[in-house]
Amino acid sequence: MKSKDGYVFRFTMRPLPIKAGKMVCHLNEADAKEMGIQPFERIELTYPRNKKKAVSVVDLSYDSVLKRHEIGVLMDVQEKLGIRDGSPLVEVRPVGRPESIDFVKKKMNNQKLSLEEIKSIVEDISSNHLSEIETAAFVSAVYINGLDLDESTHMTKALIGSGKKLSIPGKIVDKHSIGGLNGRATMIVVPIVASTGLKIPKTSSRSITSAAGTADAMEVLAPVNLSLAKIREITQKTGGVIAWGGAVDLAPADDKIIKIEYPLSLDPEGQVIASVMAKKASVGAQYVVIDLPVGPDVKVKTQEKAESLARKFIEVGKRIGIRVEAVITNGMEPSGPAFGAALEAQHVLKILEGKVYDNLAQKAVELSGVLLELAGKSPKGKGTDMALHILQSGKALSKMKEIIRAQGGKPVSAHQIPFAKFRKEVRSMQSGELSNLNVKALTTIARMAGAPIDPYAGILLHVEEGQKLRKEQPVFTIYSGSRQRLDAAYDYMKTQTIIEMEKIILEKLE
Amino acid sequence: MKSKDGYVFRFTMRPLPIKAGKMVCHLNEADAKEMGIQPFERIELTYPRNKKKAVSVVDLSYDSVLKRHEIGVLMDVQEKLGIRDGSPLVEVRPVGRPESIDFVKKKMNNQKLSLEEIKSIVEDISSNHLSEIETAAFVSAVYINGLDLDESTHMTKALIGSGKKLSIPGKIVDKHSIGGLNGRATMIVVPIVASTGLKIPKTSSRSITSAAGTADAMEVLAPVNLSLAKIREITQKTGGVIAWGGAVDLAPADDKIIKIEYPLSLDPEGQVIASVMAKKASVGAQYVVIDLPVGPDVKVKTQEKAESLARKFIEVGKRIGIRVEAVITNGMEPSGPAFGAALEAQHVLKILEGKVYDNLAQKAVELSGVLLELAGKSPKGKGTDMALHILQSGKALSKMKEIIRAQGGKPVSAHQIPFAKFRKEVRSMQSGELSNLNVKALTTIARMAGAPIDPYAGILLHVEEGQKLRKEQPVFTIYSGSRQRLDAAYDYMKTQTIIEMEKIILEKLE
Repeated sequence: MKSKDGYVFRFTMRPLPIKAGKMVCHLNEADAKEMGIQPFERIELTYPRNKKKAVSVVDLSYDSVLKRHEIGVLMDVQEKLGIRDGSPLVEVRPVGRPESIDFVKKKMNNQKLSLEEIKSIVEDISSNHLSEIETAAFVSAVYINGLDLDESTHMTKALIGSGKKLSIPGKIVDKHSIGGLNGRATMIVVPIVASTGLKIPKTSSRSITSAAGTADAMEVLAPVNLSLAKIREITQKTGGVIAWGGAVDLAPADDKIIKIEYPLSLDPEGQVIASVMAKKASVGAQYVVIDLPVGPDVKVKTQEKAESLARKFIEVGKRIGIRVEAVITNGMEPSGPAFGAALEAQHVLKILEGKVYDNLAQKAVELSGVLLELAGKSPKGKGTDMALHILQSGKALSKMKEIIRAQGGKPVSAHQIPFAKFRKEVRSMQSGELSNLNVKALTTIARMAGAPIDPYAGILLHVEEGQKLRKEQPVFTIYSGSRQRLDAAYDYMKTQTIIEMEKIILEKLE
Repeated sequence: MKSKDGYVFRFTMRPLPIKAGKMVCHLNEADAKEMGIQPFERIELTYPRNKKKAVSVVDLSYDSVLKRHEIGVLMDVQEKLGIRDGSPLVEVRPVGRPESIDFVKKKMNNQKLSLEEIKSIVEDISSNHLSEIETAAFVSAVYINGLDLDESTHMTKALIGSGKKLSIPGKIVDKHSIGGLNGRATMIVVPIVASTGLKIPKTSSRSITSAAGTADAMEVLAPVNLSLAKIREITQKTGGVIAWGGAVDLAPADDKIIKIEYPLSLDPEGQVIASVMAKKASVGAQYVVIDLPVGPDVKVKTQEKAESLARKFIEVGKRIGIRVEAVITNGMEPSGPAFGAALEAQHVLKILEGKVYDNLAQKAVELSGVLLELAGKSPKGKGTDMALHILQSGKALSKMKEIIRAQGGKPVSAHQIPFAKFRKEVRSMQSGELSNLNVKALTTIARMAGAPIDPYAGILLHVEEGQKLRKEQPVFTIYSGSRQRLDAAYDYMKTQTIIEMEKIILEKLE
């Protein structure tokens, strides 16, 4: 490691076979000391052969596992430097802290951030110039000190600015549900709304901890890894699309922030609003309905909280030019009987085919109605009727088939969706009224059976809350592609209280 | 990757040549999804051959750089599993979040933590069960919401509990300076105090961003990487020791917390107090003097802040059974003329030899006096006189030689400490009164010249603040073992304002 003008040091690169979505290099601690660099400070690497540069956060390596004058380099950094293989020499220069750290500190000190300051933080998170430690400090500060409406609006604008944008002619609408349970209302709302001439380019998520996300369920019917160009093309042609949001870079900084929020279960209100509204603005939405399920097991626990959140969504929407309507829904029971991608897709098709009309269908019709009124497709108070008519007339089903075809899928009927090879039915051990379903346990069982990787694995409920059950009545069926997984899920199920029953006669006096 | 009972997965280990002081494994994102694991969640690895287990935090790897069913494993995890080399199969089982995350969240919600809760956090930081992200959130929460005196006391006890302890018979004293400038008062206080029969087992730090730490300067005279047993033995024999704190595990959790605080320059008061007091308690100190330098360029900026901090140190000390006296000192100018390990050691020896009596000597004498009074070796008000007498009588010098010998060094005189091979003298370009020295620039120059890796590199000042300088008077000399480094440091020096001068006549009216 020769020093050139006291600043540039030469290292032999030791490639690390990891692409971690961040820029990190490891230095031998003695080298770091010689360079005056502490963990989490930054260096700029230069690959002399092509002069390409990369800024990276420094982590240490102890006990000479990494030798002196060796630098352990993640694949992310190698790619930025254009290094394909081998262990070439690289030049390393210590660089200063990004200015955005001062703004993180400012939020920690409970001072209000300007648009420029929030933009600086978001850009540095997006480009990996802020380390995960610093991002964690920012997320913690936002959780503790909050973002006010101005700051939420700034954050929304900054997140929009960090990603790509969709621009489609016409009236663009969108919907978003804040932390509900299963249920795939989106797959019903999109074809209803698209039938009216409105454009709804919906990007959805895959499962994180649930049995399936909307993108997983839609993928049973059609490809969802669509490019931005493809999303635009399909929406212009059919009016709607249901794509996986992770395949398009609509708000890359937001993904990194969410990754850091997850381990601490942090979801500061101001950040949630900005995250949702930025994604809506990025697809060009002008009219948005926000679904706020309320219940003890979902994200929003109380009616008051939901109302306050609703008002803030509406206000931030107004400030960035989006008309928002927020609806508070019942988040106390599952939105549908299915847990698992194929089972959920099948249930959606049954609703579109007119074979079932249940809670989920009703919710989708009402949400569609709100959008139709908001975008002026229906007179006030007539949206739900219009949506229901579109559903019942079969128009929504034809539109869904059109969308499936446009995304590259082959439309099928509900009964053509195959079930997993193995199944096990679970029956009630007693009679009574079903007072509560343990959705968390059902989700775990569905995942143990193979969801979300096995799209056909999952659970189908045969009963609803409030229903009277006789002894031995089938309550639900577990599906799995693997006998072993099915048995494991079943064994786990036996250790859990899945349903709570109430006797009609609570006490007998003799 | 076969699933056994739905819980255990088998992976081929891909060793990563990094020992990072934490437990981290990388999974292919598809494997993580199949296992239902998000980044920063935890897994337990088992090495089937020896049944050894290790809990690790999970990070992801994208784009198949890491293949499916491969797990990238840091050396820290390999060592815990007893894997020496190769790419063996390991078993992986997802495990839950530690309970301490709830307590981190509690502090984020500004609730008071109990002793048990703080202990749980500290133990999980110490054992790497809390990830760096979660530790960052805790540190942020402590910075924003603070620790009250009860919590600071709990934190002190928890940090003591996480590490090893020294137990030496007799009256144990200690000193600590909070973020001062250069100056090595410790190397004068220890021999003075040890001459009186008090025991002072001093652990000191190495340089982080300065030109030298006390451990670096002492190392010029004697080995400082001493085991706890050795520290005990030397203290019992000679009364004092000056060892490197990093070589002994006195408060491992504290080191990890400081590592995370550093990038954000966080030093929450409650944590600083706990960190210092835990280290003092771990060496068994009964009487402690805390030196609080105050000035615009040091950690404590105002007199009021220093007084408040002083009262808290005294109170926490009382609660854990340590008598603390805190002194507020002048942190506005360098404590000594030397920047660099050997130059600082040489200056200390000059003071001990009676050749120099300057600010640093006076400060060391006063700090020693406080300890002598506190521990009852001197009547109230007579401590400074006693300390000065010990210094001037040559007793402190003999004691220092005794300590150097006991640590395995060979005592030398100040004039026997060699200078670096290359030097460059810097002279005043004008005449006037020296009003300010740019300590930050001096430190940078000393480091560019090779400090702290080259112990003989550094800067020696020939002037003091307030002194009148004539034009061309020597101001300081830069020393370096490398002509190239010396030139780079000198060139940098020319771009900086190192000294500020005031003319006696500020303005001339004509």
